[in-house]
Amino acid sequence: MRSHYCGGINESHIDQEVTLCGWVHRRRDHGGVIFLDLRDRDGIAQVVFDPDTPESFAQADRVRSEYVIQIKGRVRHRPEGTENAHMATGQVEVLGYELELLNEAATPPFPLDEYSDVGEDVRLRYRYVDLRRPEMLNRLRFRSRVTSYLRNFLDGHGFMDVETPILTRATPEGARDYLVPSRTHAGSFFALPQSPQLFKQLLMVSGVDRYYQIAKCFRDEDLRADRQPEFTQVDVEASFVREEDIMNTMEQMIRNLFQDLLSVELPEFPRLPYAEAIRRFGSDKPDLRIPFELVDVADLVANVDFKVFSGPANNPKGRVAALRIPGGGELTRKQIDDYTNFVGIYGAKGLAYIKVNERAKGIEGLQSPIVKFLGDDVALAIMDRVEAQDGDIVFFGADKASVVDEALGALRVKIGHDLDRVEGDWAPCWVVDFPMFEEDDDGKLHALHHPFTAPVSAEELQSNPAGALSRAYDMVLNGTELGGGSIRIHEEQTQQVVFESLGIGKEEAREKFGFLLDALRFGCPPHGGLAFGLDRLVMLMTEAGSIRDVIPFPKTQNATCLMTDAPGEVDEKQLRELNIRLRKSAKDQQEGSN
Amino acid sequence: MRSHYCGGINESHIDQEVTLCGWVHRRRDHGGVIFLDLRDRDGIAQVVFDPDTPESFAQADRVRSEYVIQIKGRVRHRPEGTENAHMATGQVEVLGYELELLNEAATPPFPLDEYSDVGEDVRLRYRYVDLRRPEMLNRLRFRSRVTSYLRNFLDGHGFMDVETPILTRATPEGARDYLVPSRTHAGSFFALPQSPQLFKQLLMVSGVDRYYQIAKCFRDEDLRADRQPEFTQVDVEASFVREEDIMNTMEQMIRNLFQDLLSVELPEFPRLPYAEAIRRFGSDKPDLRIPFELVDVADLVANVDFKVFSGPANNPKGRVAALRIPGGGELTRKQIDDYTNFVGIYGAKGLAYIKVNERAKGIEGLQSPIVKFLGDDVALAIMDRVEAQDGDIVFFGADKASVVDEALGALRVKIGHDLDRVEGDWAPCWVVDFPMFEEDDDGKLHALHHPFTAPVSAEELQSNPAGALSRAYDMVLNGTELGGGSIRIHEEQTQQVVFESLGIGKEEAREKFGFLLDALRFGCPPHGGLAFGLDRLVMLMTEAGSIRDVIPFPKTQNATCLMTDAPGEVDEKQLRELNIRLRKSAKDQQEGSN
Repeated sequence: MRSHYCGGINESHIDQEVTLCGWVHRRRDHGGVIFLDLRDRDGIAQVVFDPDTPESFAQADRVRSEYVIQIKGRVRHRPEGTENAHMATGQVEVLGYELELLNEAATPPFPLDEYSDVGEDVRLRYRYVDLRRPEMLNRLRFRSRVTSYLRNFLDGHGFMDVETPILTRATPEGARDYLVPSRTHAGSFFALPQSPQLFKQLLMVSGVDRYYQIAKCFRDEDLRADRQPEFTQVDVEASFVREEDIMNTMEQMIRNLFQDLLSVELPEFPRLPYAEAIRRFGSDKPDLRIPFELVDVADLVANVDFKVFSGPANNPKGRVAALRIPGGGELTRKQIDDYTNFVGIYGAKGLAYIKVNERAKGIEGLQSPIVKFLGDDVALAIMDRVEAQDGDIVFFGADKASVVDEALGALRVKIGHDLDRVEGDWAPCWVVDFPMFEEDDDGKLHALHHPFTAPVSAEELQSNPAGALSRAYDMVLNGTELGGGSIRIHEEQTQQVVFESLGIGKEEAREKFGFLLDALRFGCPPHGGLAFGLDRLVMLMTEAGSIRDVIPFPKTQNATCLMTDAPGEVDEKQLRELNIRLRKSAKDQQEGSN
Repeated sequence: MRSHYCGGINESHIDQEVTLCGWVHRRRDHGGVIFLDLRDRDGIAQVVFDPDTPESFAQADRVRSEYVIQIKGRVRHRPEGTENAHMATGQVEVLGYELELLNEAATPPFPLDEYSDVGEDVRLRYRYVDLRRPEMLNRLRFRSRVTSYLRNFLDGHGFMDVETPILTRATPEGARDYLVPSRTHAGSFFALPQSPQLFKQLLMVSGVDRYYQIAKCFRDEDLRADRQPEFTQVDVEASFVREEDIMNTMEQMIRNLFQDLLSVELPEFPRLPYAEAIRRFGSDKPDLRIPFELVDVADLVANVDFKVFSGPANNPKGRVAALRIPGGGELTRKQIDDYTNFVGIYGAKGLAYIKVNERAKGIEGLQSPIVKFLGDDVALAIMDRVEAQDGDIVFFGADKASVVDEALGALRVKIGHDLDRVEGDWAPCWVVDFPMFEEDDDGKLHALHHPFTAPVSAEELQSNPAGALSRAYDMVLNGTELGGGSIRIHEEQTQQVVFESLGIGKEEAREKFGFLLDALRFGCPPHGGLAFGLDRLVMLMTEAGSIRDVIPFPKTQNATCLMTDAPGEVDEKQLRELNIRLRKSAKDQQEGSN
């Protein structure tokens, strides 16, 4: 129904007849002439109707914003002085002589002007209008280009696109499953996959050798800002590989992607051991664009009377660290109070600091509420250790190590942005040498990645599980984890040891993961892989403010779809077919738990 | 960990050192030498270990079938007379001098030999072993090539890959939904999509203009042979298009696919109106390779005493049709009895026939139990009408039209295969001019496609809905519906009329499809599309015997996964979080329905 897209009209079409279709973006009357800005996926073209063609002029006179029309006309230069250098089609216009009204449109619920500040709830309710805004449509298109690019890269590297089931078995990997009641098996439930992890490992047992899938994954968790109940993973697995093979291929893929789609040349990805990342940045996904680092000072404060510092300094699970902000001496009392509240979110009970006014003056040159508690020698030793300079501020964290890491790690990034000290646009890295497990407060071990991650040493896994390192690797970009993966366990015996370390007994392992254990016995090759979070990758690449801006039909943080009003109620009949019923009252719940 | 794939070794590698990884497909000892057939995704290579390299020979001596190994060796010609012309690598072998055992393997649950006849249940339980069989692995790989090909075609034609939600709202389109209880909204449920239909229409309202997605769809139906609870659709939609645009693009895509992946030149797709397809073939997905057609004879038998024929002949909803099988006179009594049972599946109460022994003899030349009921004139008139020839058999169907269509339509295909009368390999067509609705026995209208299909004429939709034609089109190949689509309704008013025709009142329409009706008001372009069943397409192209053979991890007809044992039971705690509980007894069910 069209000869060209609106956005594609240019001087090469001058004097040609064109047929365009689209939406009336704007309509102006000027000097007895009607100007329509006609919009489609590719851009906007100016179409002019003058009274010389009375029929189409009358039609054009009727149209309003967002009406859907088809026009026929001839391309011509815009009159001199009326060109628009900001528009791709700004040198030309179409003199319209036919206009067919394809559909009318009610006044949109909000203006499509990209600068208008519309509440997200309204945008989500009328998502189909919101997506019309060029910036949203361009994000969708960019996402499509990203998936297409990644697929072609992986196809070209011998990876096979294989689909794995959505209706599958609940295999607790950590998060809560979405469940689907079975009609044919009363009382049984499918689970939606948290990832295709086990299936892709089974494909390696099958000899698929190189697998990928752009896969929907599901987690029924309370949503944080950048989480969605369903999200998309670029999932990759390969056999007969070592860490280097996967990491090199994936790094190349991401570097090529940035180069070809954004013309960005990413640097080589440095490799940062987990322990170093935590020590220097308080985070296993450090934003390396921020030029501040944590420095341990526990040894210096182990013997001070100030219990706030000496307590954690003498606790094997404690940490005392300093964070020097060059030039941060100018921070006001108000700003420091705000940062104190900020670290409180992460459980820090306060935020000690020392301002460095003039180091040459020794202890006199420091300004701080805590120097008197530390003693002069210790304070000066800390200044030496952090290499403080005049005009700096040094913040402190002293608590359980996890609290200090999170609090100072987050503070580091926040101050970096607040003071505009972000260096460079893109700072990728690999984080490696993760521990197999983390220990909770009860001394129970949890898999840091997932229970199928191979250990560096099977011996150490046996003798000292809490200290054993894994063959996992995460790709981090600008403080966001883009993807994570590992070499997997390919031997039944090792898998059993990991299950035992996690407190999963033989019987439970058989019950939950019997098919995996079987598969490992029937000739499983060494294998490993990685999964990228596609939504986050696209969000970073498009500099979108939220993950919801790169997902066509996202859910709210309350896990609802405002447009379709999902989830919704269902008929009693349907519930009966599924052999379930609602617990309506507390009394019902009581009975149900018997 | 490898330098080459096993299947890639050939004479160009002679004297080169190679490292191969894979599974021991077969092991033979011959003249003091060990021969290992080493298998990977690409094929099989013969590796030879002789006692001159005692260490690797000892290793090779230990390996058994399906062990996973890595070998290093040198490629050489096979000794003269031992070449294997049936193998891609049959001219060469690898003289192995290092062997690393990567994993042992228990004896497989069934031999991987492709000729072994293993029950499907065992194959599904050990799917990861089943998929090792080269024919299965090749199907997975072919499927991957198909999706990659289709994606590249659609990318190249300006279609954008856009993801639509899996957790969505129950919008009854016909089949039963899979439901997902919401934890955060007690008593509410998400539904898994039966197709992305409404979302893709909303994307057209957004101006996406050309959309595609290879999308998972879900239907909780009792499964027929070629159905799965989750299946994959190649889903396409475009704006500002007419039937021709979609049909031409999609036909081109499928023709290119067959040409490039199978070297098959499909003929141009003839277009068959729905009424003609039913009349000639008894089916709206006719297998045009079968050279038999139904012929109406109701007018000839309207006045006979034989009520079995004259009843349906005089019933406006009845049909009397003949199916001539050239050369079918040789069918035995036993075969005819079997066909009588066969049409019984479709509700036919019998299968009348006339054998044509010698037409020149007139009525004497016919052999049939029914001629005496029809009378000579009618019998001979029928013979004229069907152009019967000596040696033919003519079958009859007389019943409600739907029964005759289904019974003779299926019989036509069955006999065509039984008598080896299938002509040609590939017979595609388009079926067009579908009615908007079909009427059930209660006179209630149901959408023949779905309620969003546009009518050919809005006037006829109003005045005579039961007779109105739609702008739908189905692509049919060899009697299988490959895909179906239509131009959609883009005006709210027309959509309301369709809902009314289906007995969906204003209130119910607003409640269930309010967001669609809203969207149609805000400037919806004319649009249409199509969806292909990917599983069936791949099944046809690979000549697989079942849809389950082209799905990596299929469910049984009972909707279970034998490998993971899904669906399974879940904790009481999970049910409580979801605000549901099981109905355990009839008594429970009684209470629940209050």
